[in-house]
Amino acid sequence: MHLHEGGKLEVTLKHPILSKEDLSKVYTPGVAEVCQAIHGDQEKAYQLTTKRNTVAVITDGTAVLGLGDIGPRAAMPVMEGKAALFKQFAGIDAVPLCLDTTNTEEIILIVKALAPTFGGINLEDIGSPRCFEIEGRLRQEMDIPVFHDDQHGTAIVVLAGLLNALKVCGKDIRQAKIVVNGVGAAGISISKMLLQAGAVRLIGVDREGAINRSVTYEKEHWAEFANISNPDNEQGPLSEVIKGADVFIGVSTQGALKVEDLQNMAKDPIVFAMANPMPEIDPVLAAPYVKVMATGRSDYPNQINNVLCFPGIFRGALDCQATDINDEMKLAAAEALSSVIEASELNENYIIPDVFDTRVVERIRIAVVKAAIRSGVARKNRLVEEVVVG
Amino acid sequence: MHLHEGGKLEVTLKHPILSKEDLSKVYTPGVAEVCQAIHGDQEKAYQLTTKRNTVAVITDGTAVLGLGDIGPRAAMPVMEGKAALFKQFAGIDAVPLCLDTTNTEEIILIVKALAPTFGGINLEDIGSPRCFEIEGRLRQEMDIPVFHDDQHGTAIVVLAGLLNALKVCGKDIRQAKIVVNGVGAAGISISKMLLQAGAVRLIGVDREGAINRSVTYEKEHWAEFANISNPDNEQGPLSEVIKGADVFIGVSTQGALKVEDLQNMAKDPIVFAMANPMPEIDPVLAAPYVKVMATGRSDYPNQINNVLCFPGIFRGALDCQATDINDEMKLAAAEALSSVIEASELNENYIIPDVFDTRVVERIRIAVVKAAIRSGVARKNRLVEEVVVG
Repeated sequence: MHLHEGGKLEVTLKHPILSKEDLSKVYTPGVAEVCQAIHGDQEKAYQLTTKRNTVAVITDGTAVLGLGDIGPRAAMPVMEGKAALFKQFAGIDAVPLCLDTTNTEEIILIVKALAPTFGGINLEDIGSPRCFEIEGRLRQEMDIPVFHDDQHGTAIVVLAGLLNALKVCGKDIRQAKIVVNGVGAAGISISKMLLQAGAVRLIGVDREGAINRSVTYEKEHWAEFANISNPDNEQGPLSEVIKGADVFIGVSTQGALKVEDLQNMAKDPIVFAMANPMPEIDPVLAAPYVKVMATGRSDYPNQINNVLCFPGIFRGALDCQATDINDEMKLAAAEALSSVIEASELNENYIIPDVFDTRVVERIRIAVVKAAIRSGVARKNRLVEEVVVG
Repeated sequence: MHLHEGGKLEVTLKHPILSKEDLSKVYTPGVAEVCQAIHGDQEKAYQLTTKRNTVAVITDGTAVLGLGDIGPRAAMPVMEGKAALFKQFAGIDAVPLCLDTTNTEEIILIVKALAPTFGGINLEDIGSPRCFEIEGRLRQEMDIPVFHDDQHGTAIVVLAGLLNALKVCGKDIRQAKIVVNGVGAAGISISKMLLQAGAVRLIGVDREGAINRSVTYEKEHWAEFANISNPDNEQGPLSEVIKGADVFIGVSTQGALKVEDLQNMAKDPIVFAMANPMPEIDPVLAAPYVKVMATGRSDYPNQINNVLCFPGIFRGALDCQATDINDEMKLAAAEALSSVIEASELNENYIIPDVFDTRVVERIRIAVVKAAIRSGVARKNRLVEEVVVG
């Protein structure tokens, strides 16, 4: 509590104002020349303002961590914490903004209006399904990158971990049967990412059982999900579809996965049990039956933690003044993250780097810049020219 | 230019995150407890987040300094500069936000939605007459103070300077004939402030001449102005109504005031020529004909500079968690600012303190907190209890 007293962030000056001369440079009349330079060439905002290194961390407080809809004021400590991580891990200046509205159109209007000040937008803890529409519309309508970390950050880190886990088990993502338990914002985003990375036999399971094409779903995102997953149109509860699965990915709740389920999985099963704060199955209970186990917790091996992704991906996006964080950049980030662990280091208790591994941000940054250039969303800038495109 | 490279501000951490333990305190799972405390008691946002020391500096970029409607991107260097002054002079964390909309209703919606994050809102460089509606509506509809510095900051500093100038000349504000040249946002706000402080014989002049009750004005704010000023319903251009005036206050343009006008003023005239960057009349030309002269410039005596007011007024408002910055607080700020100069120090070249005078912020802060308590807009907090209410 003490650590949070008065908040965790400060806005500080790069140069102190100690004399009338300083004052006349920082503010009027000296500042006028700087304004006019940008007025004449809008791109100069990247050179002459904080835009190039500043990200807004925006929430409406409706889906905060495991706490749910606690509102914008109570969401603030999380957004401040997130901003602190941006700075600590990637040197990015992040401004937490908690919005006192849950109206989709209003949130879109507000974020769009804030664009001139920021080099990127990190959406955070916005409830599903509104988060899909908000992120989708903003990505289309804005000229700076918009990234919903709960969806894509998680998906990138999961894919990175899974790529290494599959290596450890000698399995191929294109053949593996993968069950994703929990088809909300995170589950859908993870699934789409895995499909892009080559997964085919992927089935999503929610409280109503496997999402399949024999049911007509009211939820638009489930209807869409049924069409892109579950090639054999399997039906039934988790305990059915888990049979023969190589991979279980849980973004659901404590107790969702049973020992019997593990016993019904294929040989050398991989279990990512990421329910927070308590995993879908107790790692100690699961240990005898799984080959690779990952959770969201720091007190077990293989922690799937978003902080492994968002600092590097935004560092890369800002450095090349990207107009978007697209699928190619996300895939590149996941591959870069998994590549941090050398083949010789890789083992079932080390499939994902430590959050304080200093190689992580730089590796992701470079991969993201390259992918941005390849996919045509990088604006010209000195850094782009520095980077050797691979 | 070099000073503005990459912007003038940074977001920094109060406590570094160097270990997993730090991470688990600053972010999940430790942060959950902090969120829940605020969820249970919304007032705790002032204790446990940056809200209590953070102000948004918001513009739509339509009336930036002397540059006019240069848009939100080009306005950013000014807003950053303003934020830098907030920090340097009052230790306030200020976040510049340049909005990509000039729609009144949208700006109101956006600023209201941003309220949870901030302890106060400083509106800046928003064009007239939209600024009146925006500020008025936000003050009514928000539970944190909203202050349009171009209107009220200027008005407070002008009143402070004028109170001292009148002392130097042995004149009484209740008897003085005061001509305000330029009836825009600043001119109207200055006039209202002077009327509140006891002025009676106040006349506003714009390009169409003295604002009076024999004309039907299309501009709503001029119609209103005619009703509260110009008791003798004087008409005609500045050169007419200036006759016999004790005080000239210019928020207009270079050259608006002539030597003949000065010659037609009452004995010991006071001239505040605040057009930027060039005053309404050259101070050297005017010197033989005026008793006290003030400008907006730092290279002449008696600089009327907003930085004398906004740091202290927001410091006071934040410290007592005020819900508003009301007229009583503004008047108290002006009186406090004028009182910084002792009677023994006062002379025609020293009617307003230097911007680096360290007494200024603290003097205004105390006066503003007291006025907030008296007028019932201070929330309970430790600081309120510390302050002895005068």
